[in-house]
Parts: sequence; structure tokens; C-alpha cells
Amino acid sequence: MIFTKQNILEFEKPYRTNFINSLSGFKSANLIGTISSEGKTNLTIFNSVIHVGANPALMGFLMRPVSVERHTYTNIKETNYFTINHISKEIFKQAHQTSARYEKDISEFDACKLTPQFNEAIKAPYVKESKIKIGLKFLEEQEIKSNGTIFIVGEIVEIVLPDDVVDNDGYVDIEKATTIVISGLDSYHETKRIARLSYAKPGVEPKEI
Amino acid sequence: MIFTKQNILEFEKPYRTNFINSLSGFKSANLIGTISSEGKTNLTIFNSVIHVGANPALMGFLMRPVSVERHTYTNIKETNYFTINHISKEIFKQAHQTSARYEKDISEFDACKLTPQFNEAIKAPYVKESKIKIGLKFLEEQEIKSNGTIFIVGEIVEIVLPDDVVDNDGYVDIEKATTIVISGLDSYHETKRIARLSYAKPGVEPKEI
Repeated sequence: MIFTKQNILEFEKPYRTNFINSLSGFKSANLIGTISSEGKTNLTIFNSVIHVGANPALMGFLMRPVSVERHTYTNIKETNYFTINHISKEIFKQAHQTSARYEKDISEFDACKLTPQFNEAIKAPYVKESKIKIGLKFLEEQEIKSNGTIFIVGEIVEIVLPDDVVDNDGYVDIEKATTIVISGLDSYHETKRIARLSYAKPGVEPKEI
Repeated sequence: MIFTKQNILEFEKPYRTNFINSLSGFKSANLIGTISSEGKTNLTIFNSVIHVGANPALMGFLMRPVSVERHTYTNIKETNYFTINHISKEIFKQAHQTSARYEKDISEFDACKLTPQFNEAIKAPYVKESKIKIGLKFLEEQEIKSNGTIFIVGEIVEIVLPDDVVDNDGYVDIEKATTIVISGLDSYHETKRIARLSYAKPGVEPKEI
């Protein structure tokens, strides 16, 4: 089955949104926590968080255009901090609910029954119920000119995770931490490891490690 | 267990690479196909492909700094086209092997036993064995100043996928297409759907759809 650019343009908007959002493959499932300069917390689900670099340790995510007010964006610009919290299987419904359009004076923590948790190093709330939490300091933003989305980059300042998920080689077993994964806009999936593979070299078959 | 920025700096390099690469959550698993102006095909695994926008239909991915030669980058700049091909369970070892450092005169298609497939609309090879294939035209690049990585954005020109994976509302069932997911640098996982959830509205519990 082949779809052309013309087909995409002729789709009804909701159909196109579902369709195109499915094409990038599976997506990371994270909650981003921030706080305003007046101390109001905010929490929003993002499926665009990616690894940016290991040294310095950087993560980034893509945010929709700020032509309408984005509380996450405003808070990051005010405080310079945000947290990234893995969505585990146990909290996927609460996490999804954070995508509802709450007014600025309502905290998604309260509305979605999740608990803000503060550590000294980070001026932003973690999600207590999340098993893997990362505190970041804002570094830079790059606007994608084609559609006004903004790629936000932060430096990792702190990581909070369970004792038993870090393997001897540094790999963090996020499946063991019941981190889930998203496809499209609204489909949530758990995972089952097939294998880890050895570092690839020309002419050598990859081995399961 | 808490790690600070200082802890991260003190990690040995391979440990830090594994650790930090695990933190963004699960990652999309895609092969990006390109061709040089001399007609030499190239294929590389990427775990940073994300959705950028539905209208216009845009996808993007983060590429390492071009301080050393990146064949994917050079080819995209020469031809303006690239393909994104989902990695399904059946080809995950061949896909992993494309990360080996092959010389420019060797095509990863040949070295990793995958088949280039050309359609008229796209000046880049698809992976025949991949079930979901997207052809894109290069639109823009944004450099992440913090570490020199480059975010590449393309517009979707064509999509090739099986007849039976597109649901009535446009959602593409990539799990049914056996698309897999990556964690860290080298761990491959299959998925099992927990649920799709209804569009979130304030004060309304999300329903499984």
C-alpha cells in the first residue's frame, strides 16, 4: 500500500494526525515536570524525549510551537530547570491524563493524582511515583523553522533510580523498571527484551550479550 | 540511588555511554537509507527518529557531529532525499550490524544482507525487508550548539506499508508490523499493547479505546 504526499494532504485532520504520528516508530514515554517562578507546579506527558549526548550528558525534547501559551516552556525559561520522569506501567493512565488542557492555575500533579517530589539540586518537581527520574538544567533551544516546533536541550544534573536496575556495564534496565513505550498519540505498550547485541564491527556477526 | 553530575563525570567512558544512553527511555528503531551522487548506497541504524509535525508531515532525527565524515549526512546534502525504514523483529541483527564502521566504498546493504529498493518519487533506497518505509525530502538542519549534533528534518513524500496495519482512525499498528524498540545502545525489545486511551479532557477519566 503506497500513500503519496497528495494522499496525506487529502486525509481528514484527525486521521492524518493519527497516521503521521505513528510513522516515526515507537516513542519514549516521559513526564516533564516544571515549576513557575510563583511556585505553581506543572506536569505534561512528552513522547519526543531523545538522547543528545553522553559527555556532556544531554537530553532533549521537541515542543509544539509557543504561539499559544505552553506552561512547560514558560516555566523552563523562568527557572532554567526541568525534570524528565519515566512513565512506568503502574501510572500510564495518570500520565496520559496530563495531556488534558488544564488551566495554568491547576497543577496536573493534583488533577492527575501524582505526587511532586523536590530534591535540593533541581528547581523543578520530580514525579514521586516514577521509578527513573532525571533532573536537568536548561542549556539551549533550537527552533525548527519548517513548523515552529522547538527542540529544548538540557544537561543532566541528577539521576534518581532504583538500586537494582543498573547493570555492571552501566546499561540501565528500563524494562525491569517497567518503563513503557508509546506508539501514535495514545497507544501504550510494555516491552519484552529480544536480546542485547555486541558492539558491531565490519565482518563480525553480532553476538547476543 | 542518586547520581550527581560529578558522579557522571567520574564514570569510565564506556560505562557513562551505556548509562546516559539508557536514560531517555525507549527509542525508535529505524534504518536510514541514502545514496551518493555517484550512486553508492548507504544504510545506517538510528535510534533518534522522532515525529516533528503532522501538517506538513515532518519527521526528524539527531545525527552525531560531522567533524568526522558521516555518509548519511553527505548523501542527504547531495541528493536532498533519505528514507526511514522501520526495523522489524525479523531483521534486527542485520540492522544492528549497519552500525559497524564500513568504508565509504562498501554499501551496508551488501555487507549486512539487506536489499535496496527504489521507487520513482524518492532519490534514496528503501530497505525491501522493512515493512514500514517512509520516503522524505530534506527540509532543514539545526545544529545543537552544546555538542555539535545536528537535528535533520525532512518532509514525508511517500509511505509504503502493509495493507492490514492501518486502523479506521488512521492509527498505524506498528506492533502488528513487528516493529521493535531499542533501549540504551544495543538492547532490542518487542512490544505488547497495554491499551489505547481516549483523548484526555479535564475532569474525565481516560477510557480504553
